[in-house]
Amino acid sequence: MEYIIGLDCGGTKTEAFAYNVKTGEEVASAISGFGNLVVDYDLGMSHITSSIVSIFELLEGSHCKGIVLGIAGVDAGGLKEKVSNDLMTIHPTIYIFNDGQLAHFSILKGRDGICVTAGTGSVVLGLHQHKWYRIGGWGHLFGDEGSAYWIAKQAIKLALSDEDNSFQPSNLTLAIFKFFDVKDVFSLTKRLYMLSKTDIASLTTVIAQMSEEGNQEATLLLKQAGIQLGIAVEEMLRKSKLSKESLEIGLNGSVIEKNAQVFSSFHNCLEDSDINVTYCHKQSSCAKGAYYYYKMRELEGFPWGMQ
Amino acid sequence: MEYIIGLDCGGTKTEAFAYNVKTGEEVASAISGFGNLVVDYDLGMSHITSSIVSIFELLEGSHCKGIVLGIAGVDAGGLKEKVSNDLMTIHPTIYIFNDGQLAHFSILKGRDGICVTAGTGSVVLGLHQHKWYRIGGWGHLFGDEGSAYWIAKQAIKLALSDEDNSFQPSNLTLAIFKFFDVKDVFSLTKRLYMLSKTDIASLTTVIAQMSEEGNQEATLLLKQAGIQLGIAVEEMLRKSKLSKESLEIGLNGSVIEKNAQVFSSFHNCLEDSDINVTYCHKQSSCAKGAYYYYKMRELEGFPWGMQ
Repeated sequence: MEYIIGLDCGGTKTEAFAYNVKTGEEVASAISGFGNLVVDYDLGMSHITSSIVSIFELLEGSHCKGIVLGIAGVDAGGLKEKVSNDLMTIHPTIYIFNDGQLAHFSILKGRDGICVTAGTGSVVLGLHQHKWYRIGGWGHLFGDEGSAYWIAKQAIKLALSDEDNSFQPSNLTLAIFKFFDVKDVFSLTKRLYMLSKTDIASLTTVIAQMSEEGNQEATLLLKQAGIQLGIAVEEMLRKSKLSKESLEIGLNGSVIEKNAQVFSSFHNCLEDSDINVTYCHKQSSCAKGAYYYYKMRELEGFPWGMQ
Repeated sequence: MEYIIGLDCGGTKTEAFAYNVKTGEEVASAISGFGNLVVDYDLGMSHITSSIVSIFELLEGSHCKGIVLGIAGVDAGGLKEKVSNDLMTIHPTIYIFNDGQLAHFSILKGRDGICVTAGTGSVVLGLHQHKWYRIGGWGHLFGDEGSAYWIAKQAIKLALSDEDNSFQPSNLTLAIFKFFDVKDVFSLTKRLYMLSKTDIASLTTVIAQMSEEGNQEATLLLKQAGIQLGIAVEEMLRKSKLSKESLEIGLNGSVIEKNAQVFSSFHNCLEDSDINVTYCHKQSSCAKGAYYYYKMRELEGFPWGMQ
């Protein structure tokens, strides 16, 4: 049986799956530590390598048609070439994408369209006739609009603005204090600078809960996140040649997949712009993108570049 | 001769000066390593202590009337009490302020008014009848509007927006690439996440130079920084009981002290709001604030709190 390996190399774990190239059926899997090479190249690479080796212990290596990796932040500074060279000793056919592209393949099953990622961070990727287009995805310092980190940051800014304007702390501000276990904005900011962006982003679960309980400030923040993602899709339509008459959008990441308020505000935004959209929901691991990519390559087989 | 010691405990060095309490004359000085206790308490404290000990090697310890420290981020989480306790063994009379308050004392010489700090970060502090008021100063993740980091961030966002909108890189964007030694926005963002906020803020020198050479985007960014600082002063007037009929404003930090474009936009903003302002320029080290604080305390002697 011929198979293709897909690896979703994330910040906390590396998931590897092997798929039967004829049926798409999952035939083996392996899990290892984080695969984010920007954080620690050597350790990340050792996790990636050990995942692949685990698959080869289960399945005949010579039947592997290729290895497809999705790695965050892989687009810059010659990283792709380095990864490719380092993995050549394991297998001659290596395809490297960023994590958003692998998600796009997985959710849209290789078809043209847009994949909106909004989890801790955010990015909007478009694929049209083998060309890639990207909006955002610049990380928490300079972008990530509509992401969980962005929502948390807006809420924190409201709390700081309460202080600057001598307002009494709102219920939302009090919930933020409680979540981070502090008593005032001075302790809050001191604490926040000691936390990771993931820790800060986790505040968004509280905001989502408050919105469900009727807090209007929390609801407004979630709506704004949806609008930010909607704006990014509109920018994508201007940038790419994708058509608004018939657009497929894949949804990826907890904020856009699970938060009804963010999704409905996002959807209204597209409706206001007369975009005729079909949504695609994630049905399997992003690693499954490897299978769809391979099928497409087999059918059409030529190299693709980011625009 | 009786004297007072002032310490400006910064992120790169700790400057200690002793001042004759009668004349304000500087009578001894010592310099040590960084005094930012939030970064590394033990090491910062050892630098602070060694600066004080150096002064006591030059001047009779029993003639010291007190030690006044200005320390960034000292307002949160019981840090003030800890520092005070740790320094009690060296001298019984310790006064602890944040760095902005010490600058306020130094530049406004203990008088009521506003001190606008805009260097790498930014904060606006008001003093009115022994009460402190503060606007901003929430650090680079959540605020610092009008600071060098903020200006650099806005410029970087313009470069990223060029990419998102498929525009050709502007001259400003090309200058950013050159400054950070990269060829495109992908390498740029990768690089920026490896740099400190101070390294990112240093881009502002390039923006200032381009503005001088007539680049309109650069000029607009500097003007926006001035407006941000002007807005913070207006917020301060609403928050405190300081009068717009006769307001003294101290200028602190490279952006507001040295950049004519930022200052003139700031000034226009206040003029549009009919604020009758006198500007005070820094004439000596922020440590000199220790002397003015001591004089005021001697005259009026009661405790002050932040509002």
